[in-house]
Amino acid sequence: MFESAELGHCVEKSAYDQEVPALREALLNAQFDLETARKFPVIILIAGLDGAGKSLTANTLNEWMDPRYIQTHGTSDPSDEELERPHMWRFWRQLPPKGRIAIFDGSWYAWPIFERAAGRIKNAKLDQALEEVRRFEQMLIDEGALILKFWMHLSKDAQKKRLKKLESDPLTRWRVTERDWKHFEQYDSFQEISERALRRTSTAEAPWIQVEAVDPRYQKLIVGKTLLEQLRLRLGNPAPKAGSVQVAPAAPNLDGRNILRSLNLEQKLDKQVYERELEKYQGQFNLLTRHKAFRDHNVVLVFEGVDAAGKGGAIRRITQAIDARICHINPVAAPTEEERAQPYLWRFWRNLPRRGRVAIFDRSWYGRVLVERVEGFCSEADWMRAYGEINDFEEQIVNSGGIVLKFWLSISQAEQLRRFEERQHSPFKRFKITEDDWRNREKWGLYETAICAMLDRTSTEIAPWTLVESEDKYFGRIKILRTLCQRIEERL
Amino acid sequence: MFESAELGHCVEKSAYDQEVPALREALLNAQFDLETARKFPVIILIAGLDGAGKSLTANTLNEWMDPRYIQTHGTSDPSDEELERPHMWRFWRQLPPKGRIAIFDGSWYAWPIFERAAGRIKNAKLDQALEEVRRFEQMLIDEGALILKFWMHLSKDAQKKRLKKLESDPLTRWRVTERDWKHFEQYDSFQEISERALRRTSTAEAPWIQVEAVDPRYQKLIVGKTLLEQLRLRLGNPAPKAGSVQVAPAAPNLDGRNILRSLNLEQKLDKQVYERELEKYQGQFNLLTRHKAFRDHNVVLVFEGVDAAGKGGAIRRITQAIDARICHINPVAAPTEEERAQPYLWRFWRNLPRRGRVAIFDRSWYGRVLVERVEGFCSEADWMRAYGEINDFEEQIVNSGGIVLKFWLSISQAEQLRRFEERQHSPFKRFKITEDDWRNREKWGLYETAICAMLDRTSTEIAPWTLVESEDKYFGRIKILRTLCQRIEERL
Repeated sequence: MFESAELGHCVEKSAYDQEVPALREALLNAQFDLETARKFPVIILIAGLDGAGKSLTANTLNEWMDPRYIQTHGTSDPSDEELERPHMWRFWRQLPPKGRIAIFDGSWYAWPIFERAAGRIKNAKLDQALEEVRRFEQMLIDEGALILKFWMHLSKDAQKKRLKKLESDPLTRWRVTERDWKHFEQYDSFQEISERALRRTSTAEAPWIQVEAVDPRYQKLIVGKTLLEQLRLRLGNPAPKAGSVQVAPAAPNLDGRNILRSLNLEQKLDKQVYERELEKYQGQFNLLTRHKAFRDHNVVLVFEGVDAAGKGGAIRRITQAIDARICHINPVAAPTEEERAQPYLWRFWRNLPRRGRVAIFDRSWYGRVLVERVEGFCSEADWMRAYGEINDFEEQIVNSGGIVLKFWLSISQAEQLRRFEERQHSPFKRFKITEDDWRNREKWGLYETAICAMLDRTSTEIAPWTLVESEDKYFGRIKILRTLCQRIEERL
Repeated sequence: MFESAELGHCVEKSAYDQEVPALREALLNAQFDLETARKFPVIILIAGLDGAGKSLTANTLNEWMDPRYIQTHGTSDPSDEELERPHMWRFWRQLPPKGRIAIFDGSWYAWPIFERAAGRIKNAKLDQALEEVRRFEQMLIDEGALILKFWMHLSKDAQKKRLKKLESDPLTRWRVTERDWKHFEQYDSFQEISERALRRTSTAEAPWIQVEAVDPRYQKLIVGKTLLEQLRLRLGNPAPKAGSVQVAPAAPNLDGRNILRSLNLEQKLDKQVYERELEKYQGQFNLLTRHKAFRDHNVVLVFEGVDAAGKGGAIRRITQAIDARICHINPVAAPTEEERAQPYLWRFWRNLPRRGRVAIFDRSWYGRVLVERVEGFCSEADWMRAYGEINDFEEQIVNSGGIVLKFWLSISQAEQLRRFEERQHSPFKRFKITEDDWRNREKWGLYETAICAMLDRTSTEIAPWTLVESEDKYFGRIKILRTLCQRIEERL
């Protein structure tokens, strides 16, 4: 889920210096309009790891805008006044009135996440607390509030580096305490809990926006620009009607980096190495499916990728390895009449495998947030809610013993063109290329945005995406088989 | 919460026989239109106690309509096919396509409620399961489904009578097993769990409809008429846009009975008895507030009632009894400018008392679902979501040690008129009567509907409503003080 916030996003100083004056002016103007219209309050949550620049961000917003109309709230220990009332009382006190902005550092997420991290509550209790939070935010949205939730993320390496750097400098050494290193040791479990929290509370109306916290300039610009864009959107539009879905906030792309472009597509495998590895992993996979413990699990494999990325070839290398009786391939095309008369996930539910079986989906339920989004086959409200519905769906599979693997096969635009042309000129491949393929190709940029959003919102700790560099087919196929064997082995 | 379903609702045989032919014809026509339009599926849940006529209702709907286009699903033990897949798989299989009706007897609510009743899961886990259910239903609604959720209710007495009656007849004796009596012993805990389930899943779009299950004719007519009305509403309107709020289903009033009209307003107290009891309970209340354990709790008292029902007088009898320093009265009038700039519950949150204190609300947050609903000060979507928000609010107070008592003071229309006139003719009471009071009086019927809905949806096991027969002020005041003392004593 945090993959996109580990790409080394950064903004050059010169670019930053050039952008900030205009941004500040625009923010001030928007704040003035907000204050004048008094139509809705703005609630900004800044959450994430210690040391991920949360207070820096809050201070910057105060600096850039008129601080008289911004309230900033930390999450210190509750006062005795607060202790004697329901947990949420302190936050109700701190809510901004219409026309004002409040920034919450930590906010109502701090308590459930830290209690879980400390082991004082279990997952069921955590979910209960998160559900309370979700209802609270839903109420705020129904009352007209604009809520922006920023999650500041540092990779484990980046956090370690940051702590080391502070420690090595005599001037900042005092800032690193034993407690910080203790928290660092809990990094993995903290991330797992945070991911659960984000997944449960990233709703269509108030999704989390992840921000990589390595470069402060990048961090500040992302927050400032997102805030400006959302303010303008809401100020320009009439108040949303009760119960209607707002346009969901999304972060702008500042530096052109994204998770797809960060893949190294030049990775290759020799034919000889490929053949050796193929045999090895196919054999391993076959043995795993005959393992006694395999009977208690089912395997759901999802293959997605642009046209001609090599899904079919990769799938064949898997099916070759196992008994056809325990494996079923579901090629996903346009839904049938019967399927169109049901909720969109229905046709995938009906094809879930029994225990001890493998179901392969050649394209899948992700069509909703890819082709249906890009082509406008469903409304924005529909695909926005789909992320949560898909996460629910996969969680139910995993909770009932399923192993879910999702592969995104990635190739460059140039390689796609090469493969398209090859298909057109090869008599036995010509059926594989249609007008649609050429049309989709023209929408490469739109698809890229949709794919990145999909990876951000649905790569979860229980059903992560595996990105497969498929420029070289050999390399891609082996990566898929190796990942498959690893994940099944872990689970058995 | 189940008060309205314990009033002895019934329909005379002659009235029933007269109504049914037209209802059947109309239902058949609506079903035909549904099947022809194929715009949305209809999902009917029938839940509640064993023996509360669930299968009877399902059979009746099949008899009244064309059973070829109705699927009826019981909740038997899952098959081996179903056991090997996620819990919800069986229900996904059973979903009706657009244009069709499915009836679920028990449905996805059976498992969480029975697991909790058997003590195999705790409340946190129950809430987690209910939250999954809520998300599932939300998805169905977003996909366009019409969901009707009927809860068949029998009071404890009524269930006992039913079992005894079956047992006493040699022809039906075999139907009553030991298991039935064992379930009967769990009646109270089952009701408590059911209430929690209903509270968590009674959403604005798919609220529960409670049906008293004593008289089968009443039961069948309620279900049939509600279904017909909802079908007609949805068939007549264009498909709701994604994310928009549907008109919430509500049951029609068939026999003119409701919880307000069922009160015996003729109950009286002698002045002498009144004075003796007043002294007794005021003294008791005073002692309770000085109890050591009282310091760990706060008390929130809500007074609602039609104009001139005697709220002020009742409140004075309470404040007389205790130290003014620990008690605060909040007279609730139109919100201030500052309050209008916040969510509607904000002005009540800010007045929550600390521990060891008593807060009295003379009118309250229930204004949202009473005056604001009736006068159209907020949209239907707004007051529909308010029930859930209010339940959340009160649950948070109770969970943090609060004791919430809510009094509805009830008088007849004639008595109100008498008091209005008295006020107009008494120089020191004239300030208490305004044009508004006379206007409200004209909307008695609308208010009655709103009050009954409020009692149904917000009288919870943790914060129940007390209905106070206030035709005789003495009687009303003593009932309030006695209830107050009892509830505090229970909690300390």
